[in-house]
Amino acid sequence: MNFSIVQYILGWILRFEAGFLLLPALVGLIYGEGKACVSYLAAAFLCILLGLLLGRKKPTPFQLYAREGFTSVALGWVMISLMGAIPFVLAGDIPSYVDAMFETISGFTTTGASILSDVEAISRAGLFWRSFTHWIGGMGVFVFIMAVLPLMGGSNMNLMRAESPGPSVGKLAPRVRDTAKILYELYIAITLLEIILLCVFGMDLFDSMAITFGTVGTGGFGVRNDSLASYSPLIQNTVTVFMILSGINYTFYFCLLMRQFKEAFSIEEVRWYLGIIAGSVLLISFNIRAMYATLEETVRHAFFQVGSIITTSGFSTTDFNTWPQLSKTVLVLLMFVGACSGSTGGGIKVSRILILFKAIGKELSMMIHPRLVKKIKIDTRSLSPEVLQSTNAYIAVYFVIAFASLLLISVDNLDLTTNFTAVAATLNNIGPGLEMVGPLSNFSVYSSFSKIVLMFDMLAGRLELFPMLIILIPSCWKKY
Amino acid sequence: MNFSIVQYILGWILRFEAGFLLLPALVGLIYGEGKACVSYLAAAFLCILLGLLLGRKKPTPFQLYAREGFTSVALGWVMISLMGAIPFVLAGDIPSYVDAMFETISGFTTTGASILSDVEAISRAGLFWRSFTHWIGGMGVFVFIMAVLPLMGGSNMNLMRAESPGPSVGKLAPRVRDTAKILYELYIAITLLEIILLCVFGMDLFDSMAITFGTVGTGGFGVRNDSLASYSPLIQNTVTVFMILSGINYTFYFCLLMRQFKEAFSIEEVRWYLGIIAGSVLLISFNIRAMYATLEETVRHAFFQVGSIITTSGFSTTDFNTWPQLSKTVLVLLMFVGACSGSTGGGIKVSRILILFKAIGKELSMMIHPRLVKKIKIDTRSLSPEVLQSTNAYIAVYFVIAFASLLLISVDNLDLTTNFTAVAATLNNIGPGLEMVGPLSNFSVYSSFSKIVLMFDMLAGRLELFPMLIILIPSCWKKY
Repeated sequence: MNFSIVQYILGWILRFEAGFLLLPALVGLIYGEGKACVSYLAAAFLCILLGLLLGRKKPTPFQLYAREGFTSVALGWVMISLMGAIPFVLAGDIPSYVDAMFETISGFTTTGASILSDVEAISRAGLFWRSFTHWIGGMGVFVFIMAVLPLMGGSNMNLMRAESPGPSVGKLAPRVRDTAKILYELYIAITLLEIILLCVFGMDLFDSMAITFGTVGTGGFGVRNDSLASYSPLIQNTVTVFMILSGINYTFYFCLLMRQFKEAFSIEEVRWYLGIIAGSVLLISFNIRAMYATLEETVRHAFFQVGSIITTSGFSTTDFNTWPQLSKTVLVLLMFVGACSGSTGGGIKVSRILILFKAIGKELSMMIHPRLVKKIKIDTRSLSPEVLQSTNAYIAVYFVIAFASLLLISVDNLDLTTNFTAVAATLNNIGPGLEMVGPLSNFSVYSSFSKIVLMFDMLAGRLELFPMLIILIPSCWKKY
Repeated sequence: MNFSIVQYILGWILRFEAGFLLLPALVGLIYGEGKACVSYLAAAFLCILLGLLLGRKKPTPFQLYAREGFTSVALGWVMISLMGAIPFVLAGDIPSYVDAMFETISGFTTTGASILSDVEAISRAGLFWRSFTHWIGGMGVFVFIMAVLPLMGGSNMNLMRAESPGPSVGKLAPRVRDTAKILYELYIAITLLEIILLCVFGMDLFDSMAITFGTVGTGGFGVRNDSLASYSPLIQNTVTVFMILSGINYTFYFCLLMRQFKEAFSIEEVRWYLGIIAGSVLLISFNIRAMYATLEETVRHAFFQVGSIITTSGFSTTDFNTWPQLSKTVLVLLMFVGACSGSTGGGIKVSRILILFKAIGKELSMMIHPRLVKKIKIDTRSLSPEVLQSTNAYIAVYFVIAFASLLLISVDNLDLTTNFTAVAATLNNIGPGLEMVGPLSNFSVYSSFSKIVLMFDMLAGRLELFPMLIILIPSCWKKY
């Protein structure tokens, strides 16, 4: 481990976080929340101080290997959460620091699971910061830094790989920095479009911004206690569309931008993703038809909840905990499927599920026709054995973490459905689960110990498992 | 597909089943149950008739490829269940044929899940047949046929492979037939030993035989409504020991028999299996200590339930549904772990879990040290990439079947814990789950549709998934 490189990178992240923290301070100023404003300024000051201390001098030679990449990303995310939680405590919005950490990690990892029972009671600055962490975490803080800073030449790829979702990082441009720039330009464009549309459809600017951050980052923190239930149907449908758009692989938008329409619409993952959404909406609409007055209402709720869960956003327009078991089971399965790779969504990712099914199909064909030579193809390209093996390892690690977490949080003696969906909702960065962690409930039912387990799950889920595991292995910390 | 070979093999299986059915007929005769006796004789007659019809002439050349092996095993198991269910209906023990099928499949697959709410009400012949199906299914009906019949020369291996549990079939002897013989000799020896011990410890002969069949086959059908709760502690502990012994890889006993003691005790899977049992018993004993009067009672129940679940037997001495969530979660995780490969137990198998963890360890080391060349070793032998890939495929298929079943049975609108553990309990061939399918409840709460889904899961679990999937693929049925 090259400690000085990790330290230098952490220093830069903190300086950026100081910048981010100025925005909620500004919101506090606008809404006349003196205490909140000062709290965010204080946190920003602390970040810049620590950031300058850690990142004093650039180490030479600056060579970033995989190990340092993973460690920087893992520690970087833990660090911004540790610092980002401070203003919640200072401003008095969340008195317990563990709870504030939970809320901040839930924000940055775009989970949207909350320990707050009354969201409307906290300050505007606090609400803004909660939602803004979604926006930062959605596309990634490292990707952001890379987009604006010529940080470290060619070895950036190891940071990008550790932070970006999906089995393989698509390089949109030859240089990593250009890829990061394109991603953020697209991200900002979609963000602005949604804010404008929501304002036009009658939402005030503050709510529009907060809800948009939670939508495009696939986070799910709202600003009202009933999430999105009390907004108009038009607004709900708009959010549904933007959630689904945010769960699409950004390569799709890049292809559209480059006028490669045929390529865009032939991406297998995107087609499966849309197909799964359509099928789930149909099945659930049929299943819950007796619960709502009109067909429009039925389909709107089904569409919203399916979009919210598969993209791992976690907003809700209705209490799906009261839906029949079939619909709830569909939602639980969608929790695991997740969004497309290369999107801001979490979960196992549609592409991994696709690879898994194709591998199973190949295994079965080979049992029937032992001499058959068959290759697994995705988007007309053959899948390398390495990608297949790493997909398998990913899913194995995924279930190991899930089952270990289930065991650990069972000490709180809550029921299996609550525990199972709490793990699913955090590891997949969704937010609400079922029963005691359902859409109208929150995670305050758990002990601090279980909250820490679930925080680990949120970080592991957002960072694609491995960075968080690698820093737990002693040999990772050995000096060269 | 070579239909005539499959047909010929099915013919032989039915003739063997006719022989098996004579035993419960004899039991009915002894206990003076005229109707039951006649029912079992009638079923035996039907089997021999159909058996002779199907297996009239041996096809030449007699070459059994993998495809025919899988199909014969899958159809063979379905067939013996279809026929084995008939006497339950004829004797009036189980009026519904679907229920009788469920009970029979649960028997042959050594699951032990029941639809009966009052076991003590059915005939002695019926009770004997229920338990005897465990004994037949435990070591395998094809293995039995191979042990006694010089059926088809060298191509037997394809049948053995399709029916035997575990990632790779250990050949104990150079010839498949000799391996099958050794397995059954060991199996019969353990069976006799347990029957004698249980009789000595005060159980009557009938109960001893039934409970032993359920123990050594890791089945779990009892003859009393409270499973094993009302027997003496000595008997309960004896059953615990025999359950655990039955979950051990039979290679272990073969090594002991050959006086290769060092080899026997160095089998990694067996050591992990015993370690997992010890750890779980400690954890659960500590967790449930407040629920029982004495330490002896606490440890006895913990030991029994852990042994029962990890070996996938499914007997119970206490209602573990009332245990704290931590203990229940440990049991749910053990459901998935299962017993050793090459034993009569079900589940994913300890060796597969071991392979998985080693693969994860390798993947993590390679991320930290990218130039490291590391091989996965089990018992000092290197693991081939093919075994690793097939283990991955197995676990992938496993979870696909589990989640698909969960979705299908959710139409009955029972709670998630019941559905989840019902699938776990059938796919892993355990028997009882939690909540509405807990140890004091039964599977009669489900609709016929869900019962059929769960029957499929039991068969898939017993036959290691692939045979049951292959017969669902149209290209499997194409003529050469």
